[in-house]
Amino acid sequence: MRHTYHEVEFCATKVALGLLSGKWKPIIFFHLASGALRFTELWRAIPRVSKKVLLEQLRQLEDASIVERTVHNGFPPEVTYQLTPKGAELAPILQRLDQWALTHIKGTVQIS
Amino acid sequence: MRHTYHEVEFCATKVALGLLSGKWKPIIFFHLASGALRFTELWRAIPRVSKKVLLEQLRQLEDASIVERTVHNGFPPEVTYQLTPKGAELAPILQRLDQWALTHIKGTVQIS
Repeated sequence: MRHTYHEVEFCATKVALGLLSGKWKPIIFFHLASGALRFTELWRAIPRVSKKVLLEQLRQLEDASIVERTVHNGFPPEVTYQLTPKGAELAPILQRLDQWALTHIKGTVQIS
Repeated sequence: MRHTYHEVEFCATKVALGLLSGKWKPIIFFHLASGALRFTELWRAIPRVSKKVLLEQLRQLEDASIVERTVHNGFPPEVTYQLTPKGAELAPILQRLDQWALTHIKGTVQIS
């Protein structure tokens, strides 16, 4: 049994899964899927995450070009985060994954 | 901003991503998406994985009810692995994730 192009495909999925494997990344992703949020809005929306950790996770999502950060000039200046077009294309896929999980994962699901 | 049912949804996705977060699990998953395979077939299909590690990853996928193991009586007895119905429902979702990754992830993608 020979595998050539398949290996690349499997790896692509692995890389995609890896991009979202941070502790808070799926939660950040879904909050931003509804639109841009200010940093403090996002922080308040996610229970039990420190600002430091949230910033780190956001930076990793920025590095992966899934999230973009915009500084709005003004007084005081405002920083918002939103999905990039590439990130937005992930939204319907993750919604289907979410549906699958809600259907099949039994018992109490906790943030851990 | 209050979050109630949303938290459960975000977590469901996180759990789903976690189920596939093992080093070889996406690769195992895609090989089995085409049909049942004997253990040695699966092992040969995946480059650079030890039998011990492959068995561990398969066991975790069995625990998650994504993969099932069948012992076929015969001489010698044969063990095959295949996706459960729950696992099979994941296939089209992961295929879309794969397409997204192939479109957007640039540069060399390596198994690591």
